[in-house]
Amino acid sequence: MERVHNFCAGPCTLPMSVVQELADELPEFGGSGMSLIEMSHRDPIYDEVHHRTMDLLRELYLVPDDMSVLLLQGGATLQFAMVPLNLLGPGYDPDRPSAGYDPDRPSAGYDPDRPSAGYDPDRPSAGYVVSGSWGEKALEDAELVGRAYAAWSGADGGFTAMPTVDQLSIRDDSRYLHVTSNETIGGIRLPEFFDLGIRQVADMSSDYLTRVIPWDRFDVVYGGAQKNIGPAGLTVVFVRNAILDDLPSTIPAYLRYTTHTETDSLANTPPVFAIWATGKVLQWMKDQGGLPAMEKRAAERSSILYDAIDGSDGFYISPVERTYRSHTNVVFRLGDEQLEQRFLTEAEEHRLVNLKGHRSVGGMRASIYNALPTSSVEILSEFMADFAAANG
Amino acid sequence: MERVHNFCAGPCTLPMSVVQELADELPEFGGSGMSLIEMSHRDPIYDEVHHRTMDLLRELYLVPDDMSVLLLQGGATLQFAMVPLNLLGPGYDPDRPSAGYDPDRPSAGYDPDRPSAGYDPDRPSAGYVVSGSWGEKALEDAELVGRAYAAWSGADGGFTAMPTVDQLSIRDDSRYLHVTSNETIGGIRLPEFFDLGIRQVADMSSDYLTRVIPWDRFDVVYGGAQKNIGPAGLTVVFVRNAILDDLPSTIPAYLRYTTHTETDSLANTPPVFAIWATGKVLQWMKDQGGLPAMEKRAAERSSILYDAIDGSDGFYISPVERTYRSHTNVVFRLGDEQLEQRFLTEAEEHRLVNLKGHRSVGGMRASIYNALPTSSVEILSEFMADFAAANG
Repeated sequence: MERVHNFCAGPCTLPMSVVQELADELPEFGGSGMSLIEMSHRDPIYDEVHHRTMDLLRELYLVPDDMSVLLLQGGATLQFAMVPLNLLGPGYDPDRPSAGYDPDRPSAGYDPDRPSAGYDPDRPSAGYVVSGSWGEKALEDAELVGRAYAAWSGADGGFTAMPTVDQLSIRDDSRYLHVTSNETIGGIRLPEFFDLGIRQVADMSSDYLTRVIPWDRFDVVYGGAQKNIGPAGLTVVFVRNAILDDLPSTIPAYLRYTTHTETDSLANTPPVFAIWATGKVLQWMKDQGGLPAMEKRAAERSSILYDAIDGSDGFYISPVERTYRSHTNVVFRLGDEQLEQRFLTEAEEHRLVNLKGHRSVGGMRASIYNALPTSSVEILSEFMADFAAANG
Repeated sequence: MERVHNFCAGPCTLPMSVVQELADELPEFGGSGMSLIEMSHRDPIYDEVHHRTMDLLRELYLVPDDMSVLLLQGGATLQFAMVPLNLLGPGYDPDRPSAGYDPDRPSAGYDPDRPSAGYDPDRPSAGYVVSGSWGEKALEDAELVGRAYAAWSGADGGFTAMPTVDQLSIRDDSRYLHVTSNETIGGIRLPEFFDLGIRQVADMSSDYLTRVIPWDRFDVVYGGAQKNIGPAGLTVVFVRNAILDDLPSTIPAYLRYTTHTETDSLANTPPVFAIWATGKVLQWMKDQGGLPAMEKRAAERSSILYDAIDGSDGFYISPVERTYRSHTNVVFRLGDEQLEQRFLTEAEEHRLVNLKGHRSVGGMRASIYNALPTSSVEILSEFMADFAAANG
């Protein structure tokens, strides 16, 4: 089989060695007489796979001991709800009826005097940096759950830049500032993480494990696995343990972080295959030199493409302000749409696939995540030069 | 490789032909030059896989046209929250500020006068049949979200029976009755679905696609895939379309059923592998004769084991009332714990694995889901007879 060069924005390329290992090990695992995907999630053999993935996440990402690693489902989209439910919800109220099942209580859980959830003017708010479509969605959910506001919006600028720290409007009563460290659609990234008086919450789906994080500035960091660290179906969340004592007692079980921290993410059946595959990708990353190697490669890969754009005498255009150019999603345009269509068609003939920009913005986008070989980026760069020479 | 006879309560045995196909097709799919798990969920090739799984669910389960099929994440546990959030939440309030992001609104989403979520005495309640640990958890979450009560509880009886319809206490203001059609731990099932004046919501995780459903009696039916229809990581939910118009506008995106009905469950990245694998199991089920064949086999497989129990002169004991014996989880005990441990050890020597009962109840449990060959059950039955003869 000849592999394509896959620039998909996610799910995306995995290391071929990982895909082959999964195929080889799928029929039977560890002499158990069954596939790992047929095994109880309470089995010691699965337990080892489960904890290896958790341990590798902690080791590779340099996660401090006072944060927990959670293996969840539902994508970053479910975290858009879980973050405000856990961090902005009402505090503990000793007069509120207990949540447990009580067969003697005729109308368990119904109390017209119980304080309302989420709309208490004395509770803190949260600021959201709206740097693109994902930040927008995160804020929309937070507004439904609690008090949330836009601390900055790049909508007027067409989401082509991130804010500087002095552009942020953070209210005094803010519990956290939410950032999207890299916006997949606009192809922009935070060049430096903010250093603020309050802790931050970050959606890092599209630059997960591509850069070192100053963990002390964050209470929650989350992302889907399907871009940089594994296949679809797994959401990795890092939570500061200190926040867990103050969670509202009114959050349904799956949506409560403590349900998962207290059970090593085994409260209910975990997404076994995605956790297994992600563990293999993490081991591959470790073998390749870990986070420093991934960070260096991301910078290199993106530089190759930005150089191709900047060196094209205006044939290719980057709409992104230079300071904020993403290392994982390189967005570029050609003069007209017909030419862009020809570019995409000819690229596919060279096995360079999934280069079409997001439907909301058009143009081209090369998503270049951890597992994409640098050689694929070099081949794309050469193709870009050839295409410009032939059509410029 | 010699396969074991796997009686795990979930995740559990898949058809070996399905596991082998997944292994064979994993490295490259459909001539695309990549694995299906590396492919965009917007790719036409994945789209076909996605919709085939949805179509097969509808076809095999005889789902009526006025219900939607959803492919979600988070397990039945997340549905414990989503059901009451969608069905018991507050109605539409035209005076409530809109949920969308508005950069001009200084404090979007914060309104001290906004009506509280979930605790309005004028809103309907929901009755829950507490027939075991799963029904208990479902009620606990519903109590956190809205007005919910136990319409019946089997706790005093140790969860060894289901209620009859005249034992249910359903209040006049009830929006729905929630049932767990089969309790995995207790090994009990509803022999007939209730026919009531109100619609029901059912957690069918452990007897999914093992029996014909009278769909007109249900508004929502849900279950994890990892017992009867696929691997872990996928939750299948069936929702009556008529309820979608009345959903509260205050539910965060992932938790809102309409987010998924309006996008064919492609609003965010779906759990690709689990959907692909489930589609293959469903095709296998279709090839085996579909739902009628599955229903017949479930009855046969369980009869073989109940006959072994009942014919053992009291050596094996079923704690479950005969009428309510599960067709998918056969629970039984021996006189003493030492004997039970010897049973489990010797069973493993015969490659009969995962027969230990749930840690909360002890004893033995043989989970016998759709993909378990009847021959495995026959071998277990023979082993049970031999063990009784040697130790009785």
